[in-house]
Amino acid sequence: MVRRAMSSSTESAEDRLIARYFRPLATAPGALGLADDAAVLTPPPGCDLVLKTDGVIAGVHFFPDDPPEYIGRKALRMNLSDLAAKGAKPIGFLLSVALPAGTDEAWIAAFAAGLGEDAMRYGCPLFGGDTDHTPGLASVSIAAFGAVPLGRMVRRSTAKAGDCVVVTGTIGDAALGVKLRRDRKLAKSWRLTEAMIVHLEQRYLLPEPRNALAEAILHHAAAAIDVSDGLAGDLAKLCRASSVAAEIEVARVPLSDAARTALGAAPALIETVLTGGDDYEIVLTLAPEKLPAFRAAAQDAGVPVTEIGRVQAGEGARFIHDGKALEFARPSYSHF
Amino acid sequence: MVRRAMSSSTESAEDRLIARYFRPLATAPGALGLADDAAVLTPPPGCDLVLKTDGVIAGVHFFPDDPPEYIGRKALRMNLSDLAAKGAKPIGFLLSVALPAGTDEAWIAAFAAGLGEDAMRYGCPLFGGDTDHTPGLASVSIAAFGAVPLGRMVRRSTAKAGDCVVVTGTIGDAALGVKLRRDRKLAKSWRLTEAMIVHLEQRYLLPEPRNALAEAILHHAAAAIDVSDGLAGDLAKLCRASSVAAEIEVARVPLSDAARTALGAAPALIETVLTGGDDYEIVLTLAPEKLPAFRAAAQDAGVPVTEIGRVQAGEGARFIHDGKALEFARPSYSHF
Repeated sequence: MVRRAMSSSTESAEDRLIARYFRPLATAPGALGLADDAAVLTPPPGCDLVLKTDGVIAGVHFFPDDPPEYIGRKALRMNLSDLAAKGAKPIGFLLSVALPAGTDEAWIAAFAAGLGEDAMRYGCPLFGGDTDHTPGLASVSIAAFGAVPLGRMVRRSTAKAGDCVVVTGTIGDAALGVKLRRDRKLAKSWRLTEAMIVHLEQRYLLPEPRNALAEAILHHAAAAIDVSDGLAGDLAKLCRASSVAAEIEVARVPLSDAARTALGAAPALIETVLTGGDDYEIVLTLAPEKLPAFRAAAQDAGVPVTEIGRVQAGEGARFIHDGKALEFARPSYSHF
Repeated sequence: MVRRAMSSSTESAEDRLIARYFRPLATAPGALGLADDAAVLTPPPGCDLVLKTDGVIAGVHFFPDDPPEYIGRKALRMNLSDLAAKGAKPIGFLLSVALPAGTDEAWIAAFAAGLGEDAMRYGCPLFGGDTDHTPGLASVSIAAFGAVPLGRMVRRSTAKAGDCVVVTGTIGDAALGVKLRRDRKLAKSWRLTEAMIVHLEQRYLLPEPRNALAEAILHHAAAAIDVSDGLAGDLAKLCRASSVAAEIEVARVPLSDAARTALGAAPALIETVLTGGDDYEIVLTLAPEKLPAFRAAAQDAGVPVTEIGRVQAGEGARFIHDGKALEFARPSYSHF
């Protein structure tokens, strides 16, 4: 409506950008080389599809000067993390990108290259997309789809009193990384080494979704949710959906060396760690008798898992610290 | 990262907005009432899924002061139009919305109500979504999915020399509507009545996707594409994908009374009509012997269809006007 290519060829600048940078990501036959209006997907037999959409906006979910090769990857990984929590194997994704008019081709090339690397790594090719210029800042929206055996998607709403609560990886790193990204001087007061700073910032820039664990979650979990809006808030959502309570021992919540060091220097950071979001870990519940087999499967998958508490009758997720339940001013990230 | 709700409840403001305004659109069982991280879709047996994503950005695809009830509907209808062109029956959609921080709840309510009306009308319920605040202008991205019998999605690339070229509805109205929306004074020089002005502006605000014709397209079309970037450009894409040419008689291109009146007063508008975009009609090709059955099916579906030319060997889409091929400065809308 506002802007039109001045090309006299029938192939537009948009078509050329798509062919050059995005077609290489469209490795599935049903993507038709991005040369049709839509893609076709033959559903894997005996499977349900799991559908998810999530995205990132400059100035909200990432800093406009973050490396472009990380931005698309982060958006894809946010969606992959949800597929993993639901026990689903990735099939592919659709991409919507809005870029400021001045965006240079090198930015687009790096953005697409990063995204392509992850499409390959996670077996999640591009099926189609939409590219636009925007008068605002860059944004990337992804719709991802995966497969689970029919009727087997792992829900939020199926936790049971008596289940163990287990979390993957470490919690709080990305939220601390964002604080550092805003104010590097914090590193000194938190007594961080250079390696710790890099670790925390990297955890913000590029989450590590736990897709390697999806099959183990499918087989063993009673309920699961990915930790994207903070462990406290996401576990509270799972409890609300399942009509149960959970009691978590804060001392058992897995922390990186960097987060532990920062917390040692500034104990009030515990709220940032537990509510800050952007972890892209998974919190799940499972019957205690399934824990040994799940631990073994997680070890085979190379994903650290930690039991942090129990599901109980009642409501709400309580985080017990030095014998008392923590009260959070802002228990969960919210966009509104 | 930037903005967090100050609620002390574990249910965030975002959750409440979703529950109040978007959950009513999530009528499919697999949407799980929008209360899980992802949706589950059991694919219809014997079907491929058809996947499409498209969206709108304020200041690019719509005016920021357009009525909110039309904005979501337009975004959904853009995607429905592609499903129709591919012969697919809508199943559902995923929604990503980014709204400026000051957006009031009445805007969101109207936006969702409009979208919900169309979700119902087209049998295309909401399966999941993502809502964010943005420092920029509003944007809406939709990923829609439909079903076609296995292996039967109608392509761009399968037109054959000798096919008839057929287009639905009327062409050029929305592009003229946008011009009017920018400069109402044009109406006088175009000699439009008030009813004609309303018609053209309405065609820009709210396309009428041809989903009623999807089954006829599935059964009869050799190739099809929806007309979103202008008839000239989209037909050129179809020709390129099919390695054929097309020759169109401009005099046969179906026009509304309003467009015909404007063209009578300002003949140079023919380029706007043929290349302007936002028509959300369908251009398709089919073997001449299939034309009568297709016409009958279109009549049953209540969709006007017009034969406008022929597919030939060669390349490029030629628009013949007064015995000469038109040359367009800008044959197709492009975002880059």
